[in-house]
Amino acid sequence: MRPSGTFLLTRQQVSDLLTLDDCIHAVEEAFRLYGSGKAAAPGILGVHTEGGGFHIKTSLLDLNRRYFALKVNANFFNNSKLYGMPNIQGLIVLCDGVNGYPLAVMDSIEITIQRTGAATAVAAKYLARANSTSVTICGCGNQGRVQLRAIAKVLPIRKALAFDADAERASHFAAELSHCLGIEVVPAADLGAAIRSSDVCITCTPSQRWIVDYKDVRPGTFIAGVGADNEHKQELHPKLMAGNKVVVDLLDQCASIGDLHHAIAAGVANRESVYAELGEIVAGRKPGRISDDEITVFDSTGTALQDVAAAAIVYERARTAGAGQLIDFAA
Amino acid sequence: MRPSGTFLLTRQQVSDLLTLDDCIHAVEEAFRLYGSGKAAAPGILGVHTEGGGFHIKTSLLDLNRRYFALKVNANFFNNSKLYGMPNIQGLIVLCDGVNGYPLAVMDSIEITIQRTGAATAVAAKYLARANSTSVTICGCGNQGRVQLRAIAKVLPIRKALAFDADAERASHFAAELSHCLGIEVVPAADLGAAIRSSDVCITCTPSQRWIVDYKDVRPGTFIAGVGADNEHKQELHPKLMAGNKVVVDLLDQCASIGDLHHAIAAGVANRESVYAELGEIVAGRKPGRISDDEITVFDSTGTALQDVAAAAIVYERARTAGAGQLIDFAA
Repeated sequence: MRPSGTFLLTRQQVSDLLTLDDCIHAVEEAFRLYGSGKAAAPGILGVHTEGGGFHIKTSLLDLNRRYFALKVNANFFNNSKLYGMPNIQGLIVLCDGVNGYPLAVMDSIEITIQRTGAATAVAAKYLARANSTSVTICGCGNQGRVQLRAIAKVLPIRKALAFDADAERASHFAAELSHCLGIEVVPAADLGAAIRSSDVCITCTPSQRWIVDYKDVRPGTFIAGVGADNEHKQELHPKLMAGNKVVVDLLDQCASIGDLHHAIAAGVANRESVYAELGEIVAGRKPGRISDDEITVFDSTGTALQDVAAAAIVYERARTAGAGQLIDFAA
Repeated sequence: MRPSGTFLLTRQQVSDLLTLDDCIHAVEEAFRLYGSGKAAAPGILGVHTEGGGFHIKTSLLDLNRRYFALKVNANFFNNSKLYGMPNIQGLIVLCDGVNGYPLAVMDSIEITIQRTGAATAVAAKYLARANSTSVTICGCGNQGRVQLRAIAKVLPIRKALAFDADAERASHFAAELSHCLGIEVVPAADLGAAIRSSDVCITCTPSQRWIVDYKDVRPGTFIAGVGADNEHKQELHPKLMAGNKVVVDLLDQCASIGDLHHAIAAGVANRESVYAELGEIVAGRKPGRISDDEITVFDSTGTALQDVAAAAIVYERARTAGAGQLIDFAA
């Protein structure tokens, strides 16, 4: 019964083992379990220090077997400038949820990136118009890349408009992604115009004030606010969170660190005005989009439900493939 | 600046690198920093599941450098019976507190055992009579062993009385420890009598109701309750927590999961009746023992302050010795 050791997996190994299709499927299943009341709310613990901090997220899920995952991400936003080191570094510890054995320790970055894109794709399946063909990606970093790749998996996207405060980044993004995905990706100089011409708009920036104006959002649009994951970050105009069909990944978390938090602070929304948690919709407890002219908004702050789902896949693939190395920590 | 990898250390390697003397010194320093207001309160997060759960503790401390440590211990109390696996398994992730780099991932068991003994030794330095020569150890498992070794480092112990609900365990313990430590260690059949003849009494059992009766505790005794680390465990009669000089490792924690918790529930103590946190005494903010006839009580629930202090030593030793193996998780 006792495993022979703990798998150690580097970022590249994780990346080689995890496909975006699998990740989307796993994240959907994780939200379904949570929305069905078959998983406890994920845990969260933050430790702040000079220049950054450590963010711990935990979750326990009954997937192919019962898994517990803990992710510790260190966010130090001057690392790159000061030390030539990544601003975000982290590990995921995956344990057997029945006996506690540490099954794997793996780099967290690739999983954090992919599972965030996967959550948007899952939300889009239920909240975007099924015939959405155009998307604005606001924020052309690594997260923007995976967001576009993920949304193109679940919607018949033919055209993407790439906006970034740094126009050159948008151009690079457009060139790279149009090549990779074989769809039209063009840089957009005017964010408002881009949104007005898109069926879907995804924001994944470090912005600290809203960049998507409610006036630019047409009926029928699906908006995903992905960047805001602490109380200082904001991407969506508070009025977007009022009157529209607002879906959150986790209500408590979005009310304290998501775009919802700013709308609550502005007095235009509250916890009761939120339509649903994503899990409730995936589990079939509440319908998603019900008409072509609804504006739907997904507030994504990132949950350990996604981390454990993705980490479990990586672990199972590593076992099958004999990837990574094994260490017996208890020896 | 960027380290070349993360140290991976097994239980045996941790054990080889950590001496009890160093651990006591490091734990004292950690409590001093905390008691001086130079360290934030440690973080804690618990995840319960069928048959057990996961306990996460975090702390950030300015030692030789700024360190962050996270310990995840899985406690599954039927593992041994059901699967032939340890009931407690866990890992410590030690990070650079300035840039977040994961410096080491190490087995947690040896550190958990040693740092718990070390905390009692630190408490004894300030709370036991300096001329204490006799000790009762109640609970003859691995923790009892380290408790006796630790207390003998800070007090002139000449005689130990070993009590266990399982008399055979007490006999083995006595034979083994008298040999190792070169002091008289004898099994005790009558716990009350043992305590009445001892200067110090240390309990480290999984008991769920009190086993040390206040009637058996002479003036001048130092009592350390080490076993109670969840809300169901109890070792000390509630009246021992009333009227005596009660010192806790962390007030919030002891009030919810320590012996203090039961005394509060019994209505004989409250948070205000606690004399001090250990850190306040080590930092010199409050005196420890001030007379030979005080009864002093240390309620030990275990803190991440101790874990980070011990893990930092292990890491620094591993670097110097080139012990363990290195992995670049970000590769």
